[in-house]
Amino acid sequence: MSNSQVKIVEVGPRDGLQNEQSVPLKAKVQLVNALAAAGVTYIETGSFVSPKWVPQMADSAEVFAAIERNAGVTYAALTPNLKGFEAAMAATADEVAIFGSASEGFSQKNINCSIAESLARFEPVIEAARKANIKVRGYVSCVLGCPYDGEIAPEQVAWVAEKLYTMGCYEISLGDTIGVGTPLKAQQMLAAVAEKVPMEQLALHFHNTYGQALANIASCLPLGVRTIDTAVAGLGGCPYAKGASGNIATEDVVYMLHGMGYDTGIDLTRLISAGQTICQDLGQQPRSNVAQAEIAKHATD
Amino acid sequence: MSNSQVKIVEVGPRDGLQNEQSVPLKAKVQLVNALAAAGVTYIETGSFVSPKWVPQMADSAEVFAAIERNAGVTYAALTPNLKGFEAAMAATADEVAIFGSASEGFSQKNINCSIAESLARFEPVIEAARKANIKVRGYVSCVLGCPYDGEIAPEQVAWVAEKLYTMGCYEISLGDTIGVGTPLKAQQMLAAVAEKVPMEQLALHFHNTYGQALANIASCLPLGVRTIDTAVAGLGGCPYAKGASGNIATEDVVYMLHGMGYDTGIDLTRLISAGQTICQDLGQQPRSNVAQAEIAKHATD
Repeated sequence: MSNSQVKIVEVGPRDGLQNEQSVPLKAKVQLVNALAAAGVTYIETGSFVSPKWVPQMADSAEVFAAIERNAGVTYAALTPNLKGFEAAMAATADEVAIFGSASEGFSQKNINCSIAESLARFEPVIEAARKANIKVRGYVSCVLGCPYDGEIAPEQVAWVAEKLYTMGCYEISLGDTIGVGTPLKAQQMLAAVAEKVPMEQLALHFHNTYGQALANIASCLPLGVRTIDTAVAGLGGCPYAKGASGNIATEDVVYMLHGMGYDTGIDLTRLISAGQTICQDLGQQPRSNVAQAEIAKHATD
Repeated sequence: MSNSQVKIVEVGPRDGLQNEQSVPLKAKVQLVNALAAAGVTYIETGSFVSPKWVPQMADSAEVFAAIERNAGVTYAALTPNLKGFEAAMAATADEVAIFGSASEGFSQKNINCSIAESLARFEPVIEAARKANIKVRGYVSCVLGCPYDGEIAPEQVAWVAEKLYTMGCYEISLGDTIGVGTPLKAQQMLAAVAEKVPMEQLALHFHNTYGQALANIASCLPLGVRTIDTAVAGLGGCPYAKGASGNIATEDVVYMLHGMGYDTGIDLTRLISAGQTICQDLGQQPRSNVAQAEIAKHATD
């Protein structure tokens, strides 16, 4: 990957839709296929967790079975435990992801255990993935603040990221789960993590709750990070974090990156169209300024 | 002003409200007073233009007459011609502003004359202001793109900015009128203008149509610019530019600046409250992520 290429990790079908009202299987399949057709090369397609906790993802196996598989695209799944991993393998997911928190308070409230305990729980998943020759991506949440613990030290984020990396995660995605970060803090956090994990193995996963995500991404690009998690139409949010709204919209990130001369391989027009379709299914407007502006522009053409 | 201070130029009562439905005089006065009480030190309070063109601003003289005057606050008015300037003086505006365009196409379509002709028209205003010892601020529109001409060369922006500066404007506000700019282009534009006009005399006036304004501002701060135009609650837009939405929200900019360690002198909580009140008058939600997040957070406290 050249220095002017940025990899977009599209999390809309999972991180997005798990925090929206349920949509029919057909709409999910159409979304994943439309994203691939728009040139997205990494799509977090579903998650294999208890449907009791996340009913919106109960049909992830059916989604994996029904999508068209594009050879250039990685279709990934979130798998918090071995049972989930096995289900993901049965569904022939290309990759899996696990998640830790940079905040003790969030870990306790969200998954009822300490950070160290949560990491220990992932060891069997990583071991099983190694045997199956399946790559594991690691998420770290609350990297720029926690609804319970407030500010999180960059060193704390670096510690958790390094743990996941040494455990075997090939990429660490740094999540501003509640979208409270600002540019300097984002840079400081990323720099601290990059002392422990190579920059090429890091991704930004910033929510836009306080409207800061794009500014934070723009401020981190000069440090060398080249993988960004986004959700088409700004789908989703965080059900455990009060006031938290959706991921930064893929359309807004792609527009910015292309304007800055970065290559994403994504066709913005087709991407906007993919977001528009799923938003029609949800009965809502895309939470993407780029999508809204382009749709308004063409409506008055 | 120290390097860590940023001056917010609040344009909501003028650039904002002139592009919304009309609100009662009382609501406008309350907005201006609430902004001053929140610590905003520069408020574009109204405009003296033909009510045929901008009916929303027809009561600007009444607004100036009714507001409480805070000694630490500059209450400014937009005055495109001598008649407007005289009306602004009768209303005891502290400062006035004029506007040019960086785009020939926009100038022709918007004010029916060339850029050079438009600048010539402002000479009597600047001359009258000089005699009255009144400062004149100059706007340049379309600095990062034009709905008619497309891309605008940074050198073209620098040329118009220098013209306004040498004509006597003490500050040049660089407007991304249609909100299409991205961070690198914003930096290149600002750097080109700063070769002709001192950085201390420059301001950024970025609309958020494509969601890029905050990223653009964050990217320009390291170049040394320390004056930012914003509108509380993201009020307003551009009636002449298809699909263009409002100014970047003051709340979102102030949140970012404080997070980065800059001082604005503004109380964010009172600012959010000022935006919430005018939005209730308008019957709409604040177009500020920070305001929405904070209001949602406190609603569930």
